Amino acid sequence: MSPPRETAAGPDKGTGPAVDARVTRTRQDILRTTLEVLTSQGLDGLTHPHLAEVAGYSRATLYNHWPNRTALLRDAFTWRGAGEHSQPGGDLRADLIAELTMFRTEMQRHGLDRALAVLAAVTAFTPELADVRDALVTDGERVNRALLAQVFQGDELDAAVLMLTGMVINSAVVHGQLPSDDLIAAAVDLVLRGRTGRRLDAPAGDEDRLQ
Amino acid sequence: MSPPRETAAGPDKGTGPAVDARVTRTRQDILRTTLEVLTSQGLDGLTHPHLAEVAGYSRATLYNHWPNRTALLRDAFTWRGAGEHSQPGGDLRADLIAELTMFRTEMQRHGLDRALAVLAAVTAFTPELADVRDALVTDGERVNRALLAQVFQGDELDAAVLMLTGMVINSAVVHGQLPSDDLIAAAVDLVLRGRTGRRLDAPAGDEDRLQ
Repeated sequence: MSPPRETAAGPDKGTGPAVDARVTRTRQDILRTTLEVLTSQGLDGLTHPHLAEVAGYSRATLYNHWPNRTALLRDAFTWRGAGEHSQPGGDLRADLIAELTMFRTEMQRHGLDRALAVLAAVTAFTPELADVRDALVTDGERVNRALLAQVFQGDELDAAVLMLTGMVINSAVVHGQLPSDDLIAAAVDLVLRGRTGRRLDAPAGDEDRLQ
Repeated sequence: MSPPRETAAGPDKGTGPAVDARVTRTRQDILRTTLEVLTSQGLDGLTHPHLAEVAGYSRATLYNHWPNRTALLRDAFTWRGAGEHSQPGGDLRADLIAELTMFRTEMQRHGLDRALAVLAAVTAFTPELADVRDALVTDGERVNRALLAQVFQGDELDAAVLMLTGMVINSAVVHGQLPSDDLIAAAVDLVLRGRTGRRLDAPAGDEDRLQ
């Protein structure tokens, strides 16, 4: 798991530093367990009794911190974050390939593909988690969007971001198979070759106007 | 719901035409209810007792036909199919836009986005349903793949299919927002402009070699 972010997941109930530290540790233990169960067993494992047993805390402790599954998922996904990003080096093609490869690595090593599948399936029926999903998606797309904004704008930028991240998601989450290096490179090349701004229904003489 | 396909979902237990017809009707009632509950309540509603109540059959009837949730989901998704496709007219750009728009319509009208989210979340933890998912994905991509095969092959074809269908899936299922007409057109134009076969890391003089 990439370094988790601290979150303000509700007021602590401690009366001093030692109690605060213990509460923080308890919360993190349980959130970590929630994500482990979520990426190994899916939604079916996400009950307070089961999580309490796996994490080694009482059910009362879990219910005390999170009265229901939605509250627990909110904190677990926020704590998790979207994972690591690559560090762009200035070569747009190489940078996009590196970032999409990092996205794939997060799926492969940290179960991001399964976490995304569960998050999408839950959020579709739990609108109050939409802001958690949106924050994760925005962070997850951040580097790709900044890179693609060098050469695209408007609907083309949105389309390019949705297509490149969507290719990895479609492959891993819907097809159940991580994309190969060649597939990632082919997708990046296809999108970058499309950056001329030429509309295919425009007159032929207009083809190169934005090159 | 688009016209469901008949499936061989296990041997009927009737002893004559009237009994066969009744069994078939019972099965279809329950499969239809399963999909309705799945796209309105998600996985949480998918228990035999709840489905029996909603469909108006006894729990015993449900357990008799489908001993567990995996068996029920197998038949429900197979019965559902991937939905309707567009009819290509010969203009590649217009045909791709029409097919992606039809994909969006299936999401909007028939809950295909939610069905896909649930299917992905279930299949990630239930490998025995992978063949059901693969059949749906293959049928879902069929028209887009045939259209794109007119101008792409190999990894580029796979990348183009995954990007265009992935753009709609990413937008609807991950972002929770159906793609606009402009976004679909921008994606199609981007991909079709990329069909020159030029590698971006190739020498400049080699740029147009496959045009």
